[in-house]
Amino acid sequence: MEEVEVAPPQANEVRVKILFTSLCHTDVYFWEAKGQNPLFPRIYGHEAGGIVESVGEGVTDLKPGDHVLPVFTGECKECAHCKSEESNMCDLLRINTDRGVMLNDGKSRFSINGKPIYHFVGTSTFSEYTVIHVGCLAKINPLAPLDKVCVLSCGISTGLGATLNVAKPAKGSTVAVFGLGAVGLAAAEGARIAGASRIIGVDLNSNRFEEAKKFGATEFVNPKDYNKPVQEVIAEMTNGGVDRSVECTGNIDAMISAFECVHDGWGVAVLVGVPHKDAVFKTHPMNLLNERTLKGTFFGNYKPRSDLPSVVEKYMSKELEVEKFITHTVPFSEINKAFEYMLRGEGLRCIIRMEE
Amino acid sequence: MEEVEVAPPQANEVRVKILFTSLCHTDVYFWEAKGQNPLFPRIYGHEAGGIVESVGEGVTDLKPGDHVLPVFTGECKECAHCKSEESNMCDLLRINTDRGVMLNDGKSRFSINGKPIYHFVGTSTFSEYTVIHVGCLAKINPLAPLDKVCVLSCGISTGLGATLNVAKPAKGSTVAVFGLGAVGLAAAEGARIAGASRIIGVDLNSNRFEEAKKFGATEFVNPKDYNKPVQEVIAEMTNGGVDRSVECTGNIDAMISAFECVHDGWGVAVLVGVPHKDAVFKTHPMNLLNERTLKGTFFGNYKPRSDLPSVVEKYMSKELEVEKFITHTVPFSEINKAFEYMLRGEGLRCIIRMEE
Repeated sequence: MEEVEVAPPQANEVRVKILFTSLCHTDVYFWEAKGQNPLFPRIYGHEAGGIVESVGEGVTDLKPGDHVLPVFTGECKECAHCKSEESNMCDLLRINTDRGVMLNDGKSRFSINGKPIYHFVGTSTFSEYTVIHVGCLAKINPLAPLDKVCVLSCGISTGLGATLNVAKPAKGSTVAVFGLGAVGLAAAEGARIAGASRIIGVDLNSNRFEEAKKFGATEFVNPKDYNKPVQEVIAEMTNGGVDRSVECTGNIDAMISAFECVHDGWGVAVLVGVPHKDAVFKTHPMNLLNERTLKGTFFGNYKPRSDLPSVVEKYMSKELEVEKFITHTVPFSEINKAFEYMLRGEGLRCIIRMEE
Repeated sequence: MEEVEVAPPQANEVRVKILFTSLCHTDVYFWEAKGQNPLFPRIYGHEAGGIVESVGEGVTDLKPGDHVLPVFTGECKECAHCKSEESNMCDLLRINTDRGVMLNDGKSRFSINGKPIYHFVGTSTFSEYTVIHVGCLAKINPLAPLDKVCVLSCGISTGLGATLNVAKPAKGSTVAVFGLGAVGLAAAEGARIAGASRIIGVDLNSNRFEEAKKFGATEFVNPKDYNKPVQEVIAEMTNGGVDRSVECTGNIDAMISAFECVHDGWGVAVLVGVPHKDAVFKTHPMNLLNERTLKGTFFGNYKPRSDLPSVVEKYMSKELEVEKFITHTVPFSEINKAFEYMLRGEGLRCIIRMEE
C-alpha cells in the first residue's frame, strides 16, 4: 500500500474516484506474470465502480459527479468495429495487456516521487483515484448502488452476455454451462433469465453444484464421474444434445466438448474462456456440417459505453440478481485478503471498499 | 440402358414421371463406390424434375399432374428437426446413401424379371418412372420450366442457400467463395443476389474465373499463386478479412482457410463441402474468441417441401438466373456423355431429357 500521485486527465481522459472495486482472475494472472511480458511496478484492478472527479479536454459525454463503471476494453464509436452492430472489439481501445501507459502521450498518470507507475488494461482501479480514457467508461444510472453493480464491469457481464447476446437460448430450451466460476455462473444466470428449462452445469469440482443452483442450474455433470466423453453424457441426457452451450473454463478439451455436446440441426456453442496460447481446437468437420454453430465472444459482446448501462438497468429492474455473486467484502487496507480468497477458490467476488 | 419394371406407389409414396434430370458429382461418387459400401445394381440420379403419375395411400399433398422436384433428403413435418425453424435434417427422411429400398416395406420398387434393382438416396431419377416418398418431393409452380428448374433440386440450392440462408451477407458486404464448381458458383450467385459489393472466388484452377464472373465474382485468388496461406492473402485484400465466406470444396485445408479469412468481430464462415471421413478441422481458439462464427450447412438449410417452391419462384421472378448453370443437354439415350463431361470437368450441369 503506497501513496501515489495521480496526474490530472489529459484530452479524452477522465479522472475517476473509485468507490468499490473487486478482484478478478485476470488481475491475479497478470500479477503472477507467468506467461506474459512483466510490466512492473503496476497498479492492477479493472472491475470497479466510481464517480467522475474531473474531465480532460474534449470530454463531453461525462462530467464531474457522473457514476461510471471502468471497463478493460473500450468503445471509440468511430472505428469499423464500433460502427458494426455485431462487434465490440474497438480498434482503438481494445484490451491491451502489454500497454501500461495512456494513449494520449504514451505516459503514465501515476507516479511516486516522479517515478512512473504503470497502468493495467487502461483501468487500474486498485487506487482511490485513477485516470481512464473516456471510451473505457460506461455512464450508469446514478441510483444504482456502486457496491453491487461494480461487479458488472467485467466477469459477470462477460458470462451473462455470452448467453443473452450470443447463445440466445429460446424460452424452454436446454443449456449446458462449462465451468461454474463467476463467469460460468453468470452464463447460467443468463440462461435462467432467458427462461431455459434445463441448465446443465459441468465442472470438475462437484462442490460447486449446490452454489450453482442459485444461478438456475438444474442438473450437474462432473466429467470425472464418467468413463466416456462428457459430450456423449450430455447427448444421452438430452436426446441428442443441448440447444446451447457456453464454455467458461478456457480449457481446450472443455471447448471441444462444449461444441460437440450441442444438438445437430440447430445447436449453438459459445466459447468464452481464454485458452493457452498453444491450444488447438480440433473437431471432425461433420460436426459442423450437421448444422451446428460455433461462436466465440469477448466481454459478452457488450459494447462498453452503449450497452453496459442497460445491464445495470437489468439489475435495477430485479431481472438480474447481482448480490449472489458477492460473497465477501473487505476494506481497501485488507485487499490482500481478496487475493487469498481467490487463490483458495473461496467464494465468487470480493468487494473492496476504497473508503474505510 | 435396360427395361425396368416400376411397381405402384405404396402408402406415403408417389410414382413420378421424370421429364428432366441432371448429373451431380454425388451420383458419380457413389457410382465409383470407392469409399462406401457398394450397393448394386442401383439406379442413380437425384437432380430432376417430373410430374406425379400416381399416389399411394395417405398421400394428400400431391395428386397426379402436379409438378415436382425430387430431393435426396426429406421433410416428414413431424420430427423435432422438421418442427425446428432452423433445421432441415429430418429424422425420418434425412439422406441415407446406404439404404437402397423404400421405408414402407424395406423393399425396392424397381425390378427386372422379378430381380430387385436398388434405389439411390430415395430418388433414382435416371429412370422414366420412379417411386419416391411423398416427404422427398417439392410441389412447385406448374408454370416453371422443368428443363431449367430441375437443377434446383440439389447442388444449386445447396450453394445458394448456404449464402442466402446461413451466411446471410448484408448488402455491400464482402464474400469469399472457396471452390468454383456448380455449388460454389451458386454460392456466388447467392452473394450477387444479396448485393455483396465484392465476391472473391478462390480456386486452384484459374480457368474457372472467367466463368465465375457471370455469377457475380469480382475478384479471383488462386492459392497456388502465393507463397503464404490464402487466408492471409484475403485478409490483406480486405483490410482484415471478408464479412462472409462459403466453403464448397470439402478440402479440409480450404475449410480452415475459409474460416480464418473472415474478419474478427463479425465474420461468419459457412462450410458446405463434404470432407474426407478422417479429416480434422483445426484452428487456434483465439480465432473464434475474436468473435468469428463457424457454421455448417446441409442442402443450403432449405426444408425440401416447405422452402424449395420459393427457390423456384426466385427463378420465375428473374432474381435467380438458372440458365447459366446449364452448359449441356443430351437425350437419355446419351446419358454417358453427361458422365464424360463431368469426369473431364467440362461445363457445369448437363440436362438429360427423358423424352427424345
